[in-house]
Amino acid sequence: MKQAGSATLLFENRPYVLSAASVAGKAEGKGPYGHVFDEIMEDDRLGEKTFEKGERKMLLKALHRAVSRVGLPMEEAGCFLAGDLLNQIVTASYAARELALPYLGLYGACSTMTEALLLGATLVDGGYRNRALCAACSHFSTAERQYRFPLEMGTTAPPHAQRTVTGAGAVLLGDAPLLHTGYRHIRLEAATLGRVMDLGITDANNMGAAMAPAAFDTIARHLKDRDMEADAFDWIITGDLGHFGSRMLRELWKEAALDMGGRHLDCGSLIFSPEQKYHSGGSGCGCSAILLAGYVLPQLERGAVKRVLFLSTGALMSPLSACQGESIPGIAHAISLVHEE
Amino acid sequence: MKQAGSATLLFENRPYVLSAASVAGKAEGKGPYGHVFDEIMEDDRLGEKTFEKGERKMLLKALHRAVSRVGLPMEEAGCFLAGDLLNQIVTASYAARELALPYLGLYGACSTMTEALLLGATLVDGGYRNRALCAACSHFSTAERQYRFPLEMGTTAPPHAQRTVTGAGAVLLGDAPLLHTGYRHIRLEAATLGRVMDLGITDANNMGAAMAPAAFDTIARHLKDRDMEADAFDWIITGDLGHFGSRMLRELWKEAALDMGGRHLDCGSLIFSPEQKYHSGGSGCGCSAILLAGYVLPQLERGAVKRVLFLSTGALMSPLSACQGESIPGIAHAISLVHEE
Repeated sequence: MKQAGSATLLFENRPYVLSAASVAGKAEGKGPYGHVFDEIMEDDRLGEKTFEKGERKMLLKALHRAVSRVGLPMEEAGCFLAGDLLNQIVTASYAARELALPYLGLYGACSTMTEALLLGATLVDGGYRNRALCAACSHFSTAERQYRFPLEMGTTAPPHAQRTVTGAGAVLLGDAPLLHTGYRHIRLEAATLGRVMDLGITDANNMGAAMAPAAFDTIARHLKDRDMEADAFDWIITGDLGHFGSRMLRELWKEAALDMGGRHLDCGSLIFSPEQKYHSGGSGCGCSAILLAGYVLPQLERGAVKRVLFLSTGALMSPLSACQGESIPGIAHAISLVHEE
Repeated sequence: MKQAGSATLLFENRPYVLSAASVAGKAEGKGPYGHVFDEIMEDDRLGEKTFEKGERKMLLKALHRAVSRVGLPMEEAGCFLAGDLLNQIVTASYAARELALPYLGLYGACSTMTEALLLGATLVDGGYRNRALCAACSHFSTAERQYRFPLEMGTTAPPHAQRTVTGAGAVLLGDAPLLHTGYRHIRLEAATLGRVMDLGITDANNMGAAMAPAAFDTIARHLKDRDMEADAFDWIITGDLGHFGSRMLRELWKEAALDMGGRHLDCGSLIFSPEQKYHSGGSGCGCSAILLAGYVLPQLERGAVKRVLFLSTGALMSPLSACQGESIPGIAHAISLVHEE
């Protein structure tokens, strides 16, 4: 049986990560991980007339890089699973129009990268597709004006706010390594589906706090379902809890008398330096997507880390639900990546 | 190998449809299929303060009906895959908050019901989950004010416009029939992933025309991948092309010198009677979802039809992409359902 415990999928054939690519914005390029991204955009519209068209071009760049760097034509990428933060996920869907690949549109807010990976891994592991191209992206300027205020207002953010990352990450999965090219040591071994958790946070600037309980729930269930301790992983990486949400997650661990040691990293906390003054860190689907593609996967490929539990975390509210007085539901999906010789 | 041709998944274990439920709005209840739905809402807010909260309650009613009618507690539904038309799919995500099931949020516009079914079927067929609860819904009043105009304006629609269906459909899949209860003769045998097609239609009132080429592409690939003719199916059902889009699909068939005979049905064309004067018919994720749950599945269970190719069709634009001069990309996913003794 390929299901363990409450919500964990076991990938018996352990699909391979074949390739990955990341394209990041200027601010992300100036952050401490700026050097790991494949491309830094000097112009965050990439020469397009609108930020939205720029975001789409950014995603397409990441997709084409991931596939062409291993010498494959796009039509051999198997299928395309992706999502973004814009209404009706137009970035992913309009990108899909250019690719002519079979397409599955996903919406998991900032949890989308892991959602795409775990569904892509299921399709490949189960033998339904030989490859799957998984991606997520976000853009500061499109998200800000859709979720918060017109950019022209120059609104200031409260200290616990996070900045939406401008970036696109793409990961190509496959049932076998390619000849003479691409990654060959990274396998996907298991994933845990997230449940929606809501502790009643209503402040849309405090999404880290809204997502931390969901991250805790998914990590705890992943470990329990697989009968493992946290020390089985070199890193347990969350997507975009930010400084504030990360502290909250560690508090939850302490209360549960569990020990994460120094294993916890958060992409939202890593992506900007304190000097950049982006308050509580980064957020957005692109945050975990570009650090996965640019940093985590290369470290796994070379064996610098042997096993990583990677969770993207999502806040599932909308501007309308916020206006109607709803609190913010959070979700986190987890995927376990392992280095194998 | 469980993949056929370009984008078709073969379900070797042929998962079962265990149960289904539908909740529909008043106008849908007065249509020619009004008698097949489990529940007709007299109040389209269901006593809630906003249409959005009413839509969520409608979805939850369908989910609880589908699961409780076969005597299962909700936590044994395996996982929840769903989407809707609202920004950030808040209907599905806030419903997921009430269920505490592992949740995968999907966005395929009106193609969502089939997207949920094919991913749910993959999880069950592959042995990753023993059950999957798949759903989609839409609501005239929430969609109208999000996609078009404030309801208070009383805007009139052009003759080729379609009316968003108010309805929620839920389908429970499983790896084995239940003891003494539920459906036991409906199996899922294959699915074809849709590709995004765009022929340059820019009129958001003419979504049937935007989706017809995608439906044609997916049906043709499904038949080719499985080396079948259209006459292998009793019905080939599209989601919401409406009268206009259906005519266009039949023209495309004729041009390709293919014959669909009298096999083609379109949920959007069926759901309202001409006397209701809803122009080109119904649309929205709920349209195909409630006719699948209320009409198609019962017919399959009792063997009145033996094999059905079911496609929900989606128009992937957003109000913003329309304002920015983009045309409307269409998509259609197909799933093949078969009656078995």
